[in-house]
Amino acid sequence: MGMNAQSASQNAQGKRVGMQTVGLPTKPSIIGSYSIVGPKEGQGPLKSYFDEIMDDSLFGEKSWEKAESKMLNNALTKACNNAAIPTSSLNYICSGDLLNQITASCYGIKDLNVPFLGLYGACSTMAESLSVASMLVDGGFADYIVASTSSHFCSAEKQFRGPLELGSQRPPTSQWTVTGAGASIVSSVGKPEDPKITYVTTGKPMDFGINDANNMGAAMAPAALDTIITHLKETQRDPKFYDLIITGDLGSFGKSIVIDLAKEQEYDLTGNYTDCGAEIFDPKKQDVDMGGSGCGCSAAVLNGYLLKKLRTKEINKLLFVATGALMSPLCIQQGEDIVGIAHAVAIENMN
Amino acid sequence: MGMNAQSASQNAQGKRVGMQTVGLPTKPSIIGSYSIVGPKEGQGPLKSYFDEIMDDSLFGEKSWEKAESKMLNNALTKACNNAAIPTSSLNYICSGDLLNQITASCYGIKDLNVPFLGLYGACSTMAESLSVASMLVDGGFADYIVASTSSHFCSAEKQFRGPLELGSQRPPTSQWTVTGAGASIVSSVGKPEDPKITYVTTGKPMDFGINDANNMGAAMAPAALDTIITHLKETQRDPKFYDLIITGDLGSFGKSIVIDLAKEQEYDLTGNYTDCGAEIFDPKKQDVDMGGSGCGCSAAVLNGYLLKKLRTKEINKLLFVATGALMSPLCIQQGEDIVGIAHAVAIENMN
Repeated sequence: MGMNAQSASQNAQGKRVGMQTVGLPTKPSIIGSYSIVGPKEGQGPLKSYFDEIMDDSLFGEKSWEKAESKMLNNALTKACNNAAIPTSSLNYICSGDLLNQITASCYGIKDLNVPFLGLYGACSTMAESLSVASMLVDGGFADYIVASTSSHFCSAEKQFRGPLELGSQRPPTSQWTVTGAGASIVSSVGKPEDPKITYVTTGKPMDFGINDANNMGAAMAPAALDTIITHLKETQRDPKFYDLIITGDLGSFGKSIVIDLAKEQEYDLTGNYTDCGAEIFDPKKQDVDMGGSGCGCSAAVLNGYLLKKLRTKEINKLLFVATGALMSPLCIQQGEDIVGIAHAVAIENMN
Repeated sequence: MGMNAQSASQNAQGKRVGMQTVGLPTKPSIIGSYSIVGPKEGQGPLKSYFDEIMDDSLFGEKSWEKAESKMLNNALTKACNNAAIPTSSLNYICSGDLLNQITASCYGIKDLNVPFLGLYGACSTMAESLSVASMLVDGGFADYIVASTSSHFCSAEKQFRGPLELGSQRPPTSQWTVTGAGASIVSSVGKPEDPKITYVTTGKPMDFGINDANNMGAAMAPAALDTIITHLKETQRDPKFYDLIITGDLGSFGKSIVIDLAKEQEYDLTGNYTDCGAEIFDPKKQDVDMGGSGCGCSAAVLNGYLLKKLRTKEINKLLFVATGALMSPLCIQQGEDIVGIAHAVAIENMN
């Protein structure tokens, strides 16, 4: 079965610019997007950018899990509306979430009759789904793919930490799982003014020995920086090439770790770097400790805030780096560390 | 943001042969594979085909979850050995499993330093990972990708049904979650004699109103048949084109449902169809009710048995259709149905 490994690296050379990064020669477009958030997020600094703000966290459903599925369904179907395509035009749904067996996605999309590729990247899922979607579009396998994800504070707390009814005290390094969902329609047939996905840098799992589920930002920050620096080296871009480099969802503590660690490696990220989790809430007015987290945080910030800024040309070059903490409560109980991962997607206005 | 949907379908036309099926013009090769199973599977009818049989279900680890991660790591790294490539040549790992937050995969691969795309397709994961891997290779994004998955009877029973120590009686429609893992190396640079992946048919979630977690085969069978018939129609192939059409993991009851439902639609599958779950155990000698299930079932049968039969030319045209039950125990408690999905991958000898 063996073969010659050295001759191989030629084949993918056209698109592959490094060990972790591929370029997308056809530059798939994001032709529509949608964001929906919960009431708390709808009181935060980005409230005017979200497409929809729920009145309450149950969203008319009988459980938080059903509410999360409905949010995801809303984001996905309304992103199609936004792109002026019917859901039946979708070639694939690329979606995942934090719930066990990604059931927010499975039940949220089950009636749409669209081929489904379920993904799991913890809170990195928005970038993972965009990565897979844009590669499949660029590879000629699809004309329309929706990339989506969601999270819900109540379903996530119940599953990962403790029942809300227990009223557990939150340590100061905690982050607040965002109630929100976001969806992007990635397409081969965008207009010139649609934002384009130009590069995808796929992260490697990184274990730095942190096992505190209330300190996710610290677990994910080194993985985020590793992916950012790898992306910059492999694309031969300077950090200043980007109007904004944004991670999600490290929160304010994780953000400061990224800036400090970058400095040690002689990268100055002070001017054009922030984190979705540090932006979505106002830490002075909202009781969120270190800020937002959850798949829905970066999904809502990207599809609500960032893509609107790209469309108004206030941002023209964006590096979107969603970060995930690969773990389960059971594995932490069994003594495993939290493994960080971060995927980067370059989204650019080309004219 | 709108665009013209009608002009769009031209773009992906070269590779897309139908709503759910794409052809892979470069025909990515499976250049190496590996299968590992537990002791019970190692006593079944396929025992001589598995690459490795564990002496006991803990595999030298302190928990079943850690044992499952170790199995997955073994399958993946030894599949690379088998393909005569170092793991550092891998461009991506495409892997997932049944455990909450796919931790068998996350912890099984965390030290390999390879970009990771986490997938979740329940028991359809071997076909989903092969689908994504082969599209990314065909699209020019990678020269080597490992597609892998695992399941473990003890970790799955604990998570999905009840603690083993409870000694719950198993209803007669039950299936036995296979302890096993499998991995395939999908590559752009195979030898002429390596099996090729020619078509990928991606399944849609299908809800037939079944909510009995002890009757997965019935929940998944209609989805499996839908994907098989869609594949045959879209590729304009007759069922007889294939030496073998094999689903995984419906078990013997689900297999009989597929045959009966196919007959109603005037497809005769009696001659060249079976199911991985119906093949891996001997129901007369092994107490497994309706047969095997779990991601590891179709993964071990494909990477152990089927790919060896392809290499010896006893099978030349294979349609591999892994089936998944999208659900979580919590969602079933909340009254949701089990949603079935099935993905098909055509694997062929070209000479």
